[in-house]
Amino acid sequence: MKVSVLGYGTVGFGVCSMLEKAPGLELVSVLVRPGKADKPFKVTSIDEIVNDPEVEAVVEVMGGVEPAYSYVSAALAAGKHAVTSNKALVAAHGPELAKLAKEKGVGFLFSAACGGAVPFLHNLALAVESDRILSLGGILNGTTNFMLDSMQRSGMDYADALKEAQALGYAEADPTADVSGLDALRKIMLACAVAYDKLPCEGFSLEGIESVTAADVAHFQSKGLVLRLVVRGGESEDGKLYAFVQPVLLSASSPEASVLKNFNMAKYRGENAGDIVLIGQGAGRYPTASAVVRDLSDIVHGRREMMKPDCVRVAADNSVCECRYYVRLPADLADALPFAEKELDGALCRGVTEALAVTDMHARVKALRAGGAAVFFAAMEE
Amino acid sequence: MKVSVLGYGTVGFGVCSMLEKAPGLELVSVLVRPGKADKPFKVTSIDEIVNDPEVEAVVEVMGGVEPAYSYVSAALAAGKHAVTSNKALVAAHGPELAKLAKEKGVGFLFSAACGGAVPFLHNLALAVESDRILSLGGILNGTTNFMLDSMQRSGMDYADALKEAQALGYAEADPTADVSGLDALRKIMLACAVAYDKLPCEGFSLEGIESVTAADVAHFQSKGLVLRLVVRGGESEDGKLYAFVQPVLLSASSPEASVLKNFNMAKYRGENAGDIVLIGQGAGRYPTASAVVRDLSDIVHGRREMMKPDCVRVAADNSVCECRYYVRLPADLADALPFAEKELDGALCRGVTEALAVTDMHARVKALRAGGAAVFFAAMEE
Repeated sequence: MKVSVLGYGTVGFGVCSMLEKAPGLELVSVLVRPGKADKPFKVTSIDEIVNDPEVEAVVEVMGGVEPAYSYVSAALAAGKHAVTSNKALVAAHGPELAKLAKEKGVGFLFSAACGGAVPFLHNLALAVESDRILSLGGILNGTTNFMLDSMQRSGMDYADALKEAQALGYAEADPTADVSGLDALRKIMLACAVAYDKLPCEGFSLEGIESVTAADVAHFQSKGLVLRLVVRGGESEDGKLYAFVQPVLLSASSPEASVLKNFNMAKYRGENAGDIVLIGQGAGRYPTASAVVRDLSDIVHGRREMMKPDCVRVAADNSVCECRYYVRLPADLADALPFAEKELDGALCRGVTEALAVTDMHARVKALRAGGAAVFFAAMEE
Repeated sequence: MKVSVLGYGTVGFGVCSMLEKAPGLELVSVLVRPGKADKPFKVTSIDEIVNDPEVEAVVEVMGGVEPAYSYVSAALAAGKHAVTSNKALVAAHGPELAKLAKEKGVGFLFSAACGGAVPFLHNLALAVESDRILSLGGILNGTTNFMLDSMQRSGMDYADALKEAQALGYAEADPTADVSGLDALRKIMLACAVAYDKLPCEGFSLEGIESVTAADVAHFQSKGLVLRLVVRGGESEDGKLYAFVQPVLLSASSPEASVLKNFNMAKYRGENAGDIVLIGQGAGRYPTASAVVRDLSDIVHGRREMMKPDCVRVAADNSVCECRYYVRLPADLADALPFAEKELDGALCRGVTEALAVTDMHARVKALRAGGAAVFFAAMEE
C-alpha cells in the first residue's frame, strides 16, 4: 500500500523511517511546511497528495484540529484510507470522519491517538464485535504518571517533578493539557466511542494532579497507598454513558501501582473475556509510530472501522458512579464534606468521605475552591 | 460467516453460546461424540461438516493431537477457515496446517492456544509485520500462578496449594503438564513461531514449580522477593532461537509480581514499540471462547495468517542466555555450584550463583538430582 505522511515532526519522522522497512507498505510523499521541501519525496501542498492517484492511504501526524480535519476529510473524500495519531482531531470530528470513510469504502483508524504503542483501541474495536464491554479504564497519560511516580519514589515536590519531566521531554513547556487531565479525558472519549458507538462530548468530571503536594504523598505512603491519575468510562445498565478522570489512591499490590515512569495502562472488562489489561509506552517517536504502522497493516488486511459511522455524540452522566474520596482541606472546613473518617493534621484536615456520586464530589470541591480553599481529593480504589 | 464447532466441552459450549449473539457469525453445526447428538444442529461425523458446502469455517476445541489434526487438515483441505484453541495441535503440526491454509487461501488462527483471553498471538502477529521482536516472555500458566500466589499470600505448602487449585477447577486431576512447565513451554513455542517463523521443537530448558516448599517461599518473602513461573523466548543476534521455562524471583514492584491468582501476563519487546504487556484470564470457558470468536472476526476482516507457511522447525539453543540463580540444596553440596554468595540454614544451603548459561544450570541441577539431592532453583530477575 502506498502511503503519504502529513507532518514530519517527532512521530512523522518515526513513521517515515518505519515505512522504509515495512514489507507491503511504501512511503510516496511527506507533507512538510513551506520551505522545508528539501528532498524529492517532500511536498508542501495537500492538493498534490490528495490528487495523486498513486497514494492509497494518508497518515496524519500534524496534531491540532485544523488544518488536520480539512486534510483528512479531503483524503477520505478522494478515496484514500486515513490513519491518525491525533486525539484532538478524533475527539472533535471522529463521527464525521468515520461516516465519510464508510461512504467512500475506505479505512479510518486511530490507535495511536489513545495510549501510544499500547494496542488499546485496536483490541477494543475487535473485542466489541463479539463481546459486551462492561467498563473501560486505566492510566492514559504518561506525563502525569511519570510525575506521580517521581514524587512517590523520591519524595520530590510537584514543581520539581514537573521540571524533571520537562527536562526529559516527557512534559511540554505548557503542561496544562497533561496535568489537568484533559489529555487523558480525550483518550477515554475515544475509547467510549469505540466501545459504545457514543462519543461523550460534555458532562465530564475532570480533576488532574495540580493540587497534590509532597506532604500529601508522604501521607499516602505512610498508609501503603499509591496515587495514580486514572480514567474511567462505561455505560450504566440503563444506557447512561460515563467518562471521567480523577486521581485514585490504590493499594501497592494493584496492577495500576506497578505502572511506572511514563508508561500507560489501558484496561477493559468484557462480559466474556473478563479483564484485559494492556501496558506500554504511551508516547514517544517510535512507540507512537509503531501504532500508526500497525493500523496501516490492519487496513492492508481488510479492516476499515474503529469508530462506527453511526457513532453519536452524547453528554456523559457521571452521577451514575459513586466513590469514597480521600480529601485534604483546611481544618476549618472539616465539616464541609460528609466524612466517614477524618483526622486533623495541624491546620489541615485529612479524611475519607462516605460514598458520593462523582458529579457531586467534583461540584462540591469546585465550590470550596471558588471560596478560596486549597483542596486535594482522590477516589479510593474499590 | 457460517461456522461449525468441533467439540462441545467447556470451551466449545462457550463458543457456541457466543456465536448465537455475534453479528456476522452464525453457528451451523457442532461435532459431538456419538450418542450425544440430541439437538438438530449436533452432528457426530466430521465428514458431514467437511462436506457441508455451507460451512465456511471450523473451530477446533477438542484438544489433543488426534483426531484434531486429521479433522482440521480435512477442513482446510476442503477450503474452510480454521480457528483452534489447541496448543498441543499447533505445537505438533502448526507448520503443516499453516502451509495447507496458505495453499487453499483460507485462514488458520490460534490465539486462544496461548494465553486464553489475552490477545497475545493476535497482537504479536500484527506487530511482527512492521517491527522486529527483540524478546518474548511472561507468565503463561494460570494454574501454577494461582498456586504460587496462594503459597505466598497464605503461607500454604505446595500440596495444599495444589489441592486448592484442583478444588476450584484451576488444576486438573493430573496436574503434571501445568506444574512441570510443559503447558507454558508449548505456549512460548507458539509465540516463537509467530514472532520468528521458527517453531522450536527440541533443546528446551524446562523447570516447573514442583520443588518449591513453604520454607523456600518464607525465605523469599523475608527478602522482599516474589516467585513466578516465567517463560522466555527470543532470537540472539546471531540468529539462535531460545525458549525456556523456569521459576524466577522478582522484586515485589515488578509487573510480573502484580499478576495475581490464575491470570496470565504476556509480553514482547518490539524494536520500535518498546515493551508491550498484556494481562488477562489465561483459561476458562468464556475467556478462551472470546479469543476464538475474536479470531473468527479477524478472519471475516480478511486476516489469514498467524504462523507463516514457511515456518520451520529448529532446535532451541538456551546456552545464549545467562542468569544468576537462587538455589536451595543440601548443605553438603554447598560447593557443587559456583555460588557468588551463600548461607547455611540448618541442613540446607541457600545461595545465589554467578551468572550461568541456562542450559548449563539446568544440566547441573539434573545431575545433582540424579544423585538423589533435593534441589530448588529459580533465576534472579535481571
